Amino acid sequence: MVHNGIEYGDMQLIAESYHVLKTLGGLASADLASTFQKWNEGVLQSFLIEITAEIFKKKDPNGKGSLVENILDKAGQKGTGKWTVQEALELGVPIPTMAAAVDARSLSSRKEERVEAAKLFKIPSASAVEKGDSLVQATHDALYCSKIMSYAQGMAMLSAASKAYTWNLKLNEIASLWKGGCIIRARFLDSIRKAYETNTELKNLILDPFMRAEVSRSVPGLRKIVSLAAASGIPVPAFSASLAYFDSYVTANLPQNLTQAQRDFFGAHTYERIDNPGSLVHTEW
Amino acid sequence: MVHNGIEYGDMQLIAESYHVLKTLGGLASADLASTFQKWNEGVLQSFLIEITAEIFKKKDPNGKGSLVENILDKAGQKGTGKWTVQEALELGVPIPTMAAAVDARSLSSRKEERVEAAKLFKIPSASAVEKGDSLVQATHDALYCSKIMSYAQGMAMLSAASKAYTWNLKLNEIASLWKGGCIIRARFLDSIRKAYETNTELKNLILDPFMRAEVSRSVPGLRKIVSLAAASGIPVPAFSASLAYFDSYVTANLPQNLTQAQRDFFGAHTYERIDNPGSLVHTEW
Repeated sequence: MVHNGIEYGDMQLIAESYHVLKTLGGLASADLASTFQKWNEGVLQSFLIEITAEIFKKKDPNGKGSLVENILDKAGQKGTGKWTVQEALELGVPIPTMAAAVDARSLSSRKEERVEAAKLFKIPSASAVEKGDSLVQATHDALYCSKIMSYAQGMAMLSAASKAYTWNLKLNEIASLWKGGCIIRARFLDSIRKAYETNTELKNLILDPFMRAEVSRSVPGLRKIVSLAAASGIPVPAFSASLAYFDSYVTANLPQNLTQAQRDFFGAHTYERIDNPGSLVHTEW
Repeated sequence: MVHNGIEYGDMQLIAESYHVLKTLGGLASADLASTFQKWNEGVLQSFLIEITAEIFKKKDPNGKGSLVENILDKAGQKGTGKWTVQEALELGVPIPTMAAAVDARSLSSRKEERVEAAKLFKIPSASAVEKGDSLVQATHDALYCSKIMSYAQGMAMLSAASKAYTWNLKLNEIASLWKGGCIIRARFLDSIRKAYETNTELKNLILDPFMRAEVSRSVPGLRKIVSLAAASGIPVPAFSASLAYFDSYVTANLPQNLTQAQRDFFGAHTYERIDNPGSLVHTEW
């Protein structure tokens, strides 16, 4: 099930990369085919990137350019993505990249509503358009960094499930199994296997020294794409969820002290003080 | 339950506003108190904004400045937010703002992990710092626009539940009930009541003419804050989820044509053509 949740995430991240490259970068199908083909020779090497390049090469049998541009943008789903997100909520493990992917398919299926809504709102003009290699490189890095976040979420979920249900899962072996013919098979899984072989108690995949270096190198690209997309009206739910996951995870002081104050104000739910953690306090606000 | 899901969303959006104003704007507790007090006189008027202003005014009884700054940033939850998101997934209705709020509480509770992770990654320097009224106004608009998206998601969920379980819910009456003393009580609910009184078949709250105008006016502020936060390393999961929801909903052509092509490539799941919707096609890719 978690494999399929990750698959949803991978596919949505590739879809957002395509949207950004096509809309902001002006890349046509032939450019997209060669871009994904090139990406398949590097850190992103995987079955899904490989077939994406093939898809962009495929001509429409009815003679209307490339086939993919003639396909309706209503994504179906069989339920495994949904179950993954529901179970992650049960375990209390955030998997926002995968959750965004499930929602994106649901929203895409409301095609008629979207077409009507599009007529009623003005989308920002493409003033943020940025062509050329720097956009392609930033998109590559955004995809790679988000993919690391998504797999980190999936592994954290498996780790929590293993504890909750005393399954004694070996995460290195799972990463290794996923290399053997399944849809998310990717070179990247070798690095995940190594990370959990080196440290079976790893709290989060991004804390592994190799992954940490990869994230640090690629996160500026993700920041750039999320900023550009927000300014340009391009929906990037999985990219932005991945970035928010990272920025939340590496922020020592989050604003949930205010949330705790509010909960204590209206419901006397109590809070802990920074200078006396572990002790529950209530204030008459 | 949906009331409580919306409450989670409201609280997280207020927390993100606080984080942005404090970190990017340099606002101290006294400035924050007066900002939220002022906001409580306008379109954001609500119980939660009112108590937020009160919270920022409260001095620490131990003499360490304002009380809220001495509260630990580990948010608790009782489960109603989680149930809302799980049930929304069951109904196939995206409620990403609320989902982000639930995840944000979970991530906040991993305080020790975050403190350790913060030492391992370099956060962007505050080069994006923008002081003064324009940041405060953009944050106000980001909060308002995101709040509209969150309530639109909640109402869409109730509408779907009403159909699925033949409850015959009156959304105008629900909005009216929520004005009567509950935690999300707000001036804003009057506009929601009116929207569903005028059109009981409204497909999405943002399509109501009044809401549409409010969204059009406030969404540039949301774009600005999401862009700035992404560049500055400030996690804004609920702001960015709200923007992605809007941008997805008003985009006539999403990139899920690629998702459908991939699903057909690896699983023969079939797709529809733009020029022949309703008819399922499979291609030998």
